[in-house]
Amino acid sequence: MSEKTWKTAITQINPNEVRLRGYRIDDLMGQVTFAQAIFLALRGELPPPGIARLLEAMLVSSIDHGVTPPSTVAARTAASTGAMLNAAVAVGVLSINRYHGGAIHDCMNVITEGLQRAAESGELLENVARDIVAEYKVEKKRIAGLGHRIHTADPRTEKLFALAEECGVAGDGIDMIRGIQKALSATGKNLPINVDGAIAALLIDLEIPQALANAFFIMARVPGLVAHIYEEQTRERPMRRINPSDHEFDGPKARSL
Amino acid sequence: MSEKTWKTAITQINPNEVRLRGYRIDDLMGQVTFAQAIFLALRGELPPPGIARLLEAMLVSSIDHGVTPPSTVAARTAASTGAMLNAAVAVGVLSINRYHGGAIHDCMNVITEGLQRAAESGELLENVARDIVAEYKVEKKRIAGLGHRIHTADPRTEKLFALAEECGVAGDGIDMIRGIQKALSATGKNLPINVDGAIAALLIDLEIPQALANAFFIMARVPGLVAHIYEEQTRERPMRRINPSDHEFDGPKARSL
Amino acid sequence: MSEKTWKTAITQINPNEVRLRGYRIDDLMGQVTFAQAIFLALRGELPPPGIARLLEAMLVSSIDHGVTPPSTVAARTAASTGAMLNAAVAVGVLSINRYHGGAIHDCMNVITEGLQRAAESGELLENVARDIVAEYKVEKKRIAGLGHRIHTADPRTEKLFALAEECGVAGDGIDMIRGIQKALSATGKNLPINVDGAIAALLIDLEIPQALANAFFIMARVPGLVAHIYEEQTRERPMRRINPSDHEFDGPKARSL
Amino acid sequence: MSEKTWKTAITQINPNEVRLRGYRIDDLMGQVTFAQAIFLALRGELPPPGIARLLEAMLVSSIDHGVTPPSTVAARTAASTGAMLNAAVAVGVLSINRYHGGAIHDCMNVITEGLQRAAESGELLENVARDIVAEYKVEKKRIAGLGHRIHTADPRTEKLFALAEECGVAGDGIDMIRGIQKALSATGKNLPINVDGAIAALLIDLEIPQALANAFFIMARVPGLVAHIYEEQTRERPMRRINPSDHEFDGPKARSL
Repeated sequence: MSEKTWKTAITQINPNEVRLRGYRIDDLMGQVTFAQAIFLALRGELPPPGIARLLEAMLVSSIDHGVTPPSTVAARTAASTGAMLNAAVAVGVLSINRYHGGAIHDCMNVITEGLQRAAESGELLENVARDIVAEYKVEKKRIAGLGHRIHTADPRTEKLFALAEECGVAGDGIDMIRGIQKALSATGKNLPINVDGAIAALLIDLEIPQALANAFFIMARVPGLVAHIYEEQTRERPMRRINPSDHEFDGPKARSL
Repeated sequence: MSEKTWKTAITQINPNEVRLRGYRIDDLMGQVTFAQAIFLALRGELPPPGIARLLEAMLVSSIDHGVTPPSTVAARTAASTGAMLNAAVAVGVLSINRYHGGAIHDCMNVITEGLQRAAESGELLENVARDIVAEYKVEKKRIAGLGHRIHTADPRTEKLFALAEECGVAGDGIDMIRGIQKALSATGKNLPINVDGAIAALLIDLEIPQALANAFFIMARVPGLVAHIYEEQTRERPMRRINPSDHEFDGPKARSL
Repeated sequence: MSEKTWKTAITQINPNEVRLRGYRIDDLMGQVTFAQAIFLALRGELPPPGIARLLEAMLVSSIDHGVTPPSTVAARTAASTGAMLNAAVAVGVLSINRYHGGAIHDCMNVITEGLQRAAESGELLENVARDIVAEYKVEKKRIAGLGHRIHTADPRTEKLFALAEECGVAGDGIDMIRGIQKALSATGKNLPINVDGAIAALLIDLEIPQALANAFFIMARVPGLVAHIYEEQTRERPMRRINPSDHEFDGPKARSL
Repeated sequence: MSEKTWKTAITQINPNEVRLRGYRIDDLMGQVTFAQAIFLALRGELPPPGIARLLEAMLVSSIDHGVTPPSTVAARTAASTGAMLNAAVAVGVLSINRYHGGAIHDCMNVITEGLQRAAESGELLENVARDIVAEYKVEKKRIAGLGHRIHTADPRTEKLFALAEECGVAGDGIDMIRGIQKALSATGKNLPINVDGAIAALLIDLEIPQALANAFFIMARVPGLVAHIYEEQTRERPMRRINPSDHEFDGPKARSL
């Protein structure tokens, strides 16, 4: 069980010098945004100039979705017992899994498989999409990234796709998920592409590894969790029973930028 | 134990409409950065135009600090047992506490107390600072936010203060911590203001509640934790014994933006 | 930041030999119960023969309390998102805090203070108890360990006190909490000693450090959390909204040992 | 998204009455041990009289294994940052996964598959074991439950098997893992059955579902984690770098019961 020196390629620390992926952190500060630094930390390179705006929008799109997601309910429940803020954040993060947030990961599987089939067979994406929809129907499986329990047209999806177009990122990933959505719709089941499906397509077009799909959602949602935990701590009495369905919004009225 | 409808002021969800603090999320997407959306989620309003760049830099400054911080060691240890990514992130978040990250919180106490004393007594900040340093010396307590186990001049601090100056944010918070640093130095103990001390001063000048100090560090550090967990998962064998001191950097060579 | 060899006094590992607090673990196996081994691990010595039965009962008393405690709700919420069992357990453990489980810790404060006052002043416990109740009334503070949102007479309390009597453990801790309960009752507020209050008194009489009070509750409750997580995983559909108030019991009918 | 009343079969709460799987908890207290109550909570029935001693021994066997297991290292690392006890326990629990503790789960797969093959083919267990060992060799896979990085003969294994024999539990599970160990040994690779392999065999012979294998290890190890966290909190300075290899035991000298 001997130990050898182990290696890391992320951050280099020397006295009075911190370098993230080779760049001085005090050079990055003031010149790149937090979202760009996230990309640098995870991918090892700064994002190509064009996509910075898309990247920001992807993170903004998932920052919060109100009080009903289970990660929010669990984090608020922990907070109401007197948990410290970091413990309540951890509870929220631990509640982001296959059935909540995980659609990004699963939808990447579907899109990747579709693209591979198209590449191997030379078939049009729309034909491959039709086959996949038919196969899922036979196996009675849901296709991740389509449908939403509240939205019939997810407002975040079209915005992300429009920004991807503007940034010149829109590629096969978006085409594939759109093809699948159309093919499913043609069978009489008109489900919208939800924000998870949209992000799945974009992560593929941005060549971000699938292993980081869940991480992407977690990084985006942590600030939302913090906002809910802080609201719970400052606004509610301890040890209340939280019925996630029984709430009202009393924040700022609808307003425009 | 009756339950009444409870209230939330963060996010309003209606079919095909998601509003964060009153703004449509699809309007925010493409127009504000992730860091600006974080500020909106936590404070309820978008950051004043001038400070956006400072805010990005504050988050960038704390994104990672290599493999030795205990949150990184703990997260990598969990990852090496086969933990899922979100569980390893939770482990890292749970390891951010009083003695790691918590200096921001504790330093805000010192600065706030100093500012209150100055306001009440009409004394100059430098005199108040000298008193505080003397009192801590008598009580043999360390002043949070000063000194670093590796850096004798924390490169992140001066950059943050310079940006604060540019943004017109630099206020009493920065003056106070600088006063304390000078007063301590005059006693023969020349410790630099570290990044936690700098952020503490800025959070005060930005009027962000102290209860969110730890949250600020957590939000900034989660992407760094993700990078380390992913590196552990893809580069190391499972169940290795991790000696935090025994590592080498083999990432990109020093480079400039 | 040099590292020296550090010390541990819990378990000694040599090839083919594991010793817990000096005893071979394969000698302990078959001769001591799990509860006795827990005591040995935490206190460094095996429990005195008489108290083993009391110790078992203390742990049994807190093993579960149905689906409404927030640790159970949070653990089930995480499980319903597809969390792995250990992650859902962690969520439950993170939801055991000051307002849930923490009454043991807080009640130990009250009892300890009462006993100290009595020792210093030579006053009768009942007089000290009356003073404490009066002081809490003036400060409008609740006394931890008294009252229960469901039980008007906590069935676990009297059983624990009876067993303590049998084991010869019943000491000043029990007398003090009983005195406080009576004094409060005399003011017209007849609240029962709840299971947390009973355990607080027993931990004092057993000389278990207060720092382990919360640990005691956690160790006892983990199996209950596991049972709920497993039930959630095997019986409910994923991503359901869990209203803690809206449930029915459909397990075994009332039965006797 | 309508909500219906949901069901639970674990614990029934009525005013002044708590029933675990049908039994009054105040009847269980004083009559059954903690380990027996754990079995009742998880399986729905009290353990058959004979096996109580075995059950205690299984839990005792895994209560602690010194400072090098990653769950202990991670929990101590969190504790050294100032984490609350429950947060440090959660960190430890989150570090029990496939490569640490998970051997129980994986070994149950091997044993179950072996027993199924034997049942279907009518072959002798020793022949099935030989086939399985040969197949793993071809696929260059390790067999979970065999071998230990420290012990060449795991002292816990033989004790557990001896107790199982005494209790009349020893069945096909033990025979199968022993057969596999012998078959592997015959190929020149003499690895001992480790404690995980022994518990895997016993869980099968006790008909405890595989989904609870990891839970079993977690429940047994939580007290050990608590002991280490408490030792870290009371004995070490905050924010130390923990090298898991560099420690000494300074607890009680070797002693007998």
